[in-house]
Amino acid sequence: MRRDPQAVFAARMHPGARWLPFDQLKPLIDDDRLGWIRRSDLADEALEIFLGLDDGMPRFAAAMSAEGLDGEARDVRAAAMTLSPADAAIAAHGRSLVDWHQRHGFCANCGAMTALAKAGYARSCGGCGAEHFPRTDPVVIMLALDGDRCLLGRQPQFPKGFMSALAGFVEPGESIDEAVRRELHEEAGIRIGRVAHVASQPWPFPSSLMIGAFAEAETTEIRLDDDELEEARWFTKDEIHAVFAGNGPVNAPPPMAIAWTLLRTWADN
Amino acid sequence: MRRDPQAVFAARMHPGARWLPFDQLKPLIDDDRLGWIRRSDLADEALEIFLGLDDGMPRFAAAMSAEGLDGEARDVRAAAMTLSPADAAIAAHGRSLVDWHQRHGFCANCGAMTALAKAGYARSCGGCGAEHFPRTDPVVIMLALDGDRCLLGRQPQFPKGFMSALAGFVEPGESIDEAVRRELHEEAGIRIGRVAHVASQPWPFPSSLMIGAFAEAETTEIRLDDDELEEARWFTKDEIHAVFAGNGPVNAPPPMAIAWTLLRTWADN
Repeated sequence: MRRDPQAVFAARMHPGARWLPFDQLKPLIDDDRLGWIRRSDLADEALEIFLGLDDGMPRFAAAMSAEGLDGEARDVRAAAMTLSPADAAIAAHGRSLVDWHQRHGFCANCGAMTALAKAGYARSCGGCGAEHFPRTDPVVIMLALDGDRCLLGRQPQFPKGFMSALAGFVEPGESIDEAVRRELHEEAGIRIGRVAHVASQPWPFPSSLMIGAFAEAETTEIRLDDDELEEARWFTKDEIHAVFAGNGPVNAPPPMAIAWTLLRTWADN
Repeated sequence: MRRDPQAVFAARMHPGARWLPFDQLKPLIDDDRLGWIRRSDLADEALEIFLGLDDGMPRFAAAMSAEGLDGEARDVRAAAMTLSPADAAIAAHGRSLVDWHQRHGFCANCGAMTALAKAGYARSCGGCGAEHFPRTDPVVIMLALDGDRCLLGRQPQFPKGFMSALAGFVEPGESIDEAVRRELHEEAGIRIGRVAHVASQPWPFPSSLMIGAFAEAETTEIRLDDDELEEARWFTKDEIHAVFAGNGPVNAPPPMAIAWTLLRTWADN
């Protein structure tokens, strides 16, 4: 539908069409649910992005002030704790696209102004005609494994008492496995053998695709890159079970994080 | 090293330092090897990107004219047939970074001019101070499987007689598995159950990360999206064996393509 301007125009006119306002990137939340509004409440100057159909009903994100509307504009990550998983995913996805539009008003190729295109899934340049698409940055997040032990680390900005799987951006020219090996070597000095893909999930803060993996450690001595990590150490399965039970030596990542899936999958097997 | 301007300056002065010229994105090739040059042959105005260390010797890409140098500037994909796999990967990676710099002279956020930073792994804006990094676009490429049969398709721009695994960009807000399911449903009308990750590889034309997967088909009736594919059909394992033997009904993807790995892995198991 996004490629068809007439279909998107018709979708906007559909009586079941709804818009989710994003005010300063914060979605409107009303009583722990998304604050969808009707066309009559849409601000004239709102930037609109087509999100898709929900049971045949068109859904849009709208960058606009939430003043005077029912509910409250709330930070997506804080709201994710109380929204349903489906609503949290919509809020995060909409926020990511609105953010991208607001930071891509100009063409990287020629510097001219760009305009929203393809119902919000592209911007086109008025100068050189280049088309720009939202980026999705692949990130590897991996649990280095040494038999009954797994490696967790602490970035300086983590909350106190919290450790998680190591992670880093896939760089141009790398495969996923190469990125896993490079990151564990750079950040913790660990050499890795086999890499196994576990799962992936979008993490739209602002636009990551988290790719979770297990990585077999061939060495275990930790050499920290102080710029990236302030601590890293090996944890036994018993310690991780204790972490999940709430009485471990550190705090576990929240269930919405893929690091949780990695730890849970490993600890339960 | 890229974060340390003094280290990169020292690397440039290293007697073993070499530069690979890219003329109009074409690397210098001399007698089926990369045409590395010394600093004395480097053009004054060359855009330089630090690629890394080869056995302790610094290596750079240099966007500059190749006129007067030994060898010939050649298209990366054509040259990949005769270069060693390691050299082909360096040429493709360098081309991808040069291309990105040349198309990102301006800041998407404010429209001001940007300058090369971090030894070529970033550009920074002289106006608003935003930092921009090369993008890596995750692409799923997958073999839908129905027992003894796999699905191949033909994009309109493919060479005659050539079919391959279906593929498409991972969109913002999706996981890898969701992208696999969406693409196969949109392009061929096939419903997918389980998805299994097989392998990944960079495909820097201009900047893709190809993520290869097997996808269990739950339906087999093909409904083509004419905008994307001009043909798609199921092939038996016997047919794929014949394709690899050079007497099949279509031509196989080249061994450097991940589609080859997918087909080979499936057919040999």
